[in-house]
Amino acid sequence: MHPLSPVRPDEISAVSRLLQASLKGVGLRFKIIDLQEPIKKDLVPFLEAERTGAVLPRPPPRIFYALFDRLDNGNFVKALVNVTNSHIMSIRELPKDLHGPVDGDEVLELEAMCLKHPDVIAEIEKLQLPPGVTVCTDPWVYGTDSESETRRLTQFYMYLVDNNPECNHYSLPLKISPVFDTTTKTLIRIDYLPSGADEKTTETTPWKPTKAVEFAPELLTEPMREDVKPYIVQQPDGASFTIEDENVVRWQKWRFRVRSTYREGIVLQNVTYDGRNVIYRMAINEMTVPYGDPRAPYHRKQAFDAGDVGFGATANALSLGCDCLGHIHYFSSVRASSSGMPVDMPNVICLHEQDAGLQFKHTNYRTNTATVVRNRQLVVQMICTLANYEYIFAYIFDQAGGLETEIRATGILSTMPIDEGITVPWGTNVAPGVMAANHQHLFSLRIDPAIDGYNNTAFFEESMAMERDPKLNPYGAGYVAKQTSIVQSGSAVLDTSKNRVFKIRNDSVINQVSQKPVAYKIHAAPSQMLVFGDDTYQVRRARYATKPFWFTKYRDDELYAAGEFTNMSRASSGVEVWSGRGDNIENNDVVIWHTFGLTHNPRPEDFPVMPVERISVTLKPDGFFTKNPALDVPQSSQRFNKSILHQDKAEPIVDTSSSCCSTYVPKAHM
Amino acid sequence: MHPLSPVRPDEISAVSRLLQASLKGVGLRFKIIDLQEPIKKDLVPFLEAERTGAVLPRPPPRIFYALFDRLDNGNFVKALVNVTNSHIMSIRELPKDLHGPVDGDEVLELEAMCLKHPDVIAEIEKLQLPPGVTVCTDPWVYGTDSESETRRLTQFYMYLVDNNPECNHYSLPLKISPVFDTTTKTLIRIDYLPSGADEKTTETTPWKPTKAVEFAPELLTEPMREDVKPYIVQQPDGASFTIEDENVVRWQKWRFRVRSTYREGIVLQNVTYDGRNVIYRMAINEMTVPYGDPRAPYHRKQAFDAGDVGFGATANALSLGCDCLGHIHYFSSVRASSSGMPVDMPNVICLHEQDAGLQFKHTNYRTNTATVVRNRQLVVQMICTLANYEYIFAYIFDQAGGLETEIRATGILSTMPIDEGITVPWGTNVAPGVMAANHQHLFSLRIDPAIDGYNNTAFFEESMAMERDPKLNPYGAGYVAKQTSIVQSGSAVLDTSKNRVFKIRNDSVINQVSQKPVAYKIHAAPSQMLVFGDDTYQVRRARYATKPFWFTKYRDDELYAAGEFTNMSRASSGVEVWSGRGDNIENNDVVIWHTFGLTHNPRPEDFPVMPVERISVTLKPDGFFTKNPALDVPQSSQRFNKSILHQDKAEPIVDTSSSCCSTYVPKAHM
Repeated sequence: MHPLSPVRPDEISAVSRLLQASLKGVGLRFKIIDLQEPIKKDLVPFLEAERTGAVLPRPPPRIFYALFDRLDNGNFVKALVNVTNSHIMSIRELPKDLHGPVDGDEVLELEAMCLKHPDVIAEIEKLQLPPGVTVCTDPWVYGTDSESETRRLTQFYMYLVDNNPECNHYSLPLKISPVFDTTTKTLIRIDYLPSGADEKTTETTPWKPTKAVEFAPELLTEPMREDVKPYIVQQPDGASFTIEDENVVRWQKWRFRVRSTYREGIVLQNVTYDGRNVIYRMAINEMTVPYGDPRAPYHRKQAFDAGDVGFGATANALSLGCDCLGHIHYFSSVRASSSGMPVDMPNVICLHEQDAGLQFKHTNYRTNTATVVRNRQLVVQMICTLANYEYIFAYIFDQAGGLETEIRATGILSTMPIDEGITVPWGTNVAPGVMAANHQHLFSLRIDPAIDGYNNTAFFEESMAMERDPKLNPYGAGYVAKQTSIVQSGSAVLDTSKNRVFKIRNDSVINQVSQKPVAYKIHAAPSQMLVFGDDTYQVRRARYATKPFWFTKYRDDELYAAGEFTNMSRASSGVEVWSGRGDNIENNDVVIWHTFGLTHNPRPEDFPVMPVERISVTLKPDGFFTKNPALDVPQSSQRFNKSILHQDKAEPIVDTSSSCCSTYVPKAHM
Repeated sequence: MHPLSPVRPDEISAVSRLLQASLKGVGLRFKIIDLQEPIKKDLVPFLEAERTGAVLPRPPPRIFYALFDRLDNGNFVKALVNVTNSHIMSIRELPKDLHGPVDGDEVLELEAMCLKHPDVIAEIEKLQLPPGVTVCTDPWVYGTDSESETRRLTQFYMYLVDNNPECNHYSLPLKISPVFDTTTKTLIRIDYLPSGADEKTTETTPWKPTKAVEFAPELLTEPMREDVKPYIVQQPDGASFTIEDENVVRWQKWRFRVRSTYREGIVLQNVTYDGRNVIYRMAINEMTVPYGDPRAPYHRKQAFDAGDVGFGATANALSLGCDCLGHIHYFSSVRASSSGMPVDMPNVICLHEQDAGLQFKHTNYRTNTATVVRNRQLVVQMICTLANYEYIFAYIFDQAGGLETEIRATGILSTMPIDEGITVPWGTNVAPGVMAANHQHLFSLRIDPAIDGYNNTAFFEESMAMERDPKLNPYGAGYVAKQTSIVQSGSAVLDTSKNRVFKIRNDSVINQVSQKPVAYKIHAAPSQMLVFGDDTYQVRRARYATKPFWFTKYRDDELYAAGEFTNMSRASSGVEVWSGRGDNIENNDVVIWHTFGLTHNPRPEDFPVMPVERISVTLKPDGFFTKNPALDVPQSSQRFNKSILHQDKAEPIVDTSSSCCSTYVPKAHM
């Protein structure tokens, strides 16, 4: 078994069994059981031996971490278990103010607990709901507004379901918001959501019947479009990728390992191109979504979807023909249930190719001969459902050494009730009685590079005019790219006015054509950082989201930008701490953290379900190769592509004659 | 014939015939004969009558403009001709310092002229070229470095062709650069390109044989990849678009006119969604490419590819199965030859659909039922070859009211000779003896909006934290989007730190759900503006490229951001002039000009032919609709999409069972 193989069900069972045996008689409620990756010092020699075909050293053992609650004393515990040797390495009770994530089992238990509570039922009765209209609830992390709260709390947003279970309950938000102590399962209080133009709340009154705004096809009343004709992708010879050893993907000179972790979702590791190292590890490791409605209780509305919940934990089981087009391979995953039993998560990652248009083209105008090559890409994709929202994560490899990280947000806006005739400046009315507050989505992409080796230097380049010089630059027509190396850990900002581009180079490997160190560049996604003031909990809990770039010196287990425990955190404990060590990171084991995202001020078109909003970051070779690495990709041709000429007649004309792309030579009329 | 129909060959003949008859005995050399669009005051009533189904007024006549040189006195002339009435409206000789564009016939004539000149031949002989190695040349616009030059000059960059005509001559650049007076066809001088680390030039010496760096498939020596398997797009029921009246496209509630103009290439007009006005006219109207090598003669190296040459003029004849995938429709065009004869330009615009992944998805986690809709798009595309470079222009329509303008740069870097062992800070060595200088590509997108009508207001929104307030905002957790209307013509910058977003609204039409005026927003492409100093010719000739946004009040014939005549211009005369009028543009006929592009500091991977570098600007509805306008798009389903499960066996398993997208409910192991 490879050190980076996907988690196996029996490994999860082994961990919980060992811990249960060790803590005899104590009820344990598991939050996460997942692979603790080998330390880099042990893993790199193994990967390098694989890469170079050398004799493999003994593989590092399979170690797992487990996060669980002890039901006897309510403590939250972290354990490390060596599954290879069936040996518990450590068990550590965590401080009382650290809380574990919300797990899937827990969400359903919480919903039931809330909806069954007599005080909640009494409150709901005041609504005087007609028959068939019921209440459902989205449990939400409580968030933070205090330095002294140590209880594990949950707030509940409540909605109506009008008969059909597929009713879009987000279009029928209620003002009732119970707060529970999740550990003791007791009701703390019932909050009321303000629904006017200010912070005042009102008592619960009978519900004024309102129609839901639906999107589920069986509930739509308007006629569907009938003119969308089928678009089928066929790969008659199969796909161009191969899978080995469970989770090694080979495609167009790329080779990499992929798996899903509970927290991050897709993790790419050991990424090489044509046998050369490019990336050691890359993953979206956190995303925070703070809301901009100032009024209680919304001041606490801030999700950390990786740390509070988990992207891998909420990944959809993808369906053939629904989510992906063409010739698809799936990777599955497994997680632990609250009782420590393995739960299959099939088809959480899909792998397939796509055609992204032309990759390069040139026509020699003298001869009218064209060289045309198409842009075939490989997509590794996961879709995560976080209650109302969906996030589609895709890593897209191309044939010219490029690797894109693309995120698309879709799903449903988080909604709040608003009274008739009212509008507010911190949100948009998206349906009668429904307001969606402004919010941000700020992601962290952790890039652990290995550009032709494991010691790299991060730097940036800026383009600026040269000074005038009577001999060299008499017209002020010169401009240069000025490099600044990042020698010490810290943070940095982007600057479009200077075209500041961050890059990663290997000073030990010089490109023989350009005479510069081989490098990759980052096409970043310039984004507004957290809009809130420096002294707010929004910022204190997510310092990673105050700067677009952080640079740290690698240490094992520094994986999550805001820190390991975000649920009800009072302050983050991540990149701002690690980069503050002032480590020397020049020609060293540098790790790059790119913060980017969306300032999302909702529009009516985002409701009842949102067309994807897309954001993307691309790594591109920058002197890693001595010339275009995709020159050996065969040309585009009709014999291969079989495109069809559109006619308004019934029978399309199929032109399969030409095998290479000569172009028409225009002749003048006489 | 519709006022916006494509140009017909007989119209071009009519124009040149009328002008030739009017200027009897004078030799005329035509540069451009193209449609002069009707003035807006006349066109709008016609388009509105079409849109609303009213009685059509009399259509405006077909008027053409012609730019030509008089061979008797060398004057450059602009004429307006009413082809409908066979009547010349005006003939105007232009000032001596205005020059017409370079035309296609001219380029081939210039090449021949240069290569036949005895002084040039003598210079070439000094190279002592081996048999089979010949010289070719790219004529280039001369550019500007003087206030007093009025001659029409051409500079020539020279390269070697090693036997095969498909040899990549850009990898064999020479130091010889003749300069000719294009009008008198006389050699002015021979410049020498500096090839060391500074501005010094050297005399021509015998060529040291160097291998070309090839990309044409027949000249590649390395083996081609054999593992790229076919990827075929099939549309068994045809495409979802329809074409009417020659150049009206209908697709998924969009209706628009498309045609190619000589200068801009693709122009979109009268764009409506579901019968509602969105855009009056939109086009990329200019692009400047200034180079950053400070040394003579490169200080003059700045192309204006629309104004100096023409995107429509250089559009490729697209080949079925080479450039576009799937079910393709082509639009053709026609231009004038230098003798005023119509020249067919077939297949310059292709139209086809593409699948861009998921459009929206939501899974109800309680029931595991998913709604999944795919993102079908319509692509309108043109590929233009400007000597060494290619630009791929695409307008991409989606089903949710979005319209993207995408530009991809490919083709070949412009190269200069460099001596062995030398590197320079203003460029990159991309092959032995070959340097590619830093340069920028700055595009102007002219958007003439008609958001639900012809009086619109441009404005921008910025997201900023609300001030603390003990009642309303006690935790500093609120943020708002603050609007600033653009009331007077002028320019503006982007500001990512505030998430500044430019939008266009119609104050007369209020969205009933959001209670705000209907609007569209611009997802701009934040880019570095011209890097050069304010007093350089680079900037003086292209003021549009100093700001990302310009706002002008509509006037007929204000179409080109740098002005109508760019060839050897000394200063631009475009948006900076028109916006300087200080017109009131609030709730008015406002025109928006977005400048964006690439600061391109070459990398070896860009050579010998460049993988596409992509940049894009998207218009999205922002309260134009009361909800997601694509809810009526049918769900994704396997029965429709026919995806295939990848197996490493010979026979793929085809799963066509599921018709809607229910997802797997995970069960824990017991």
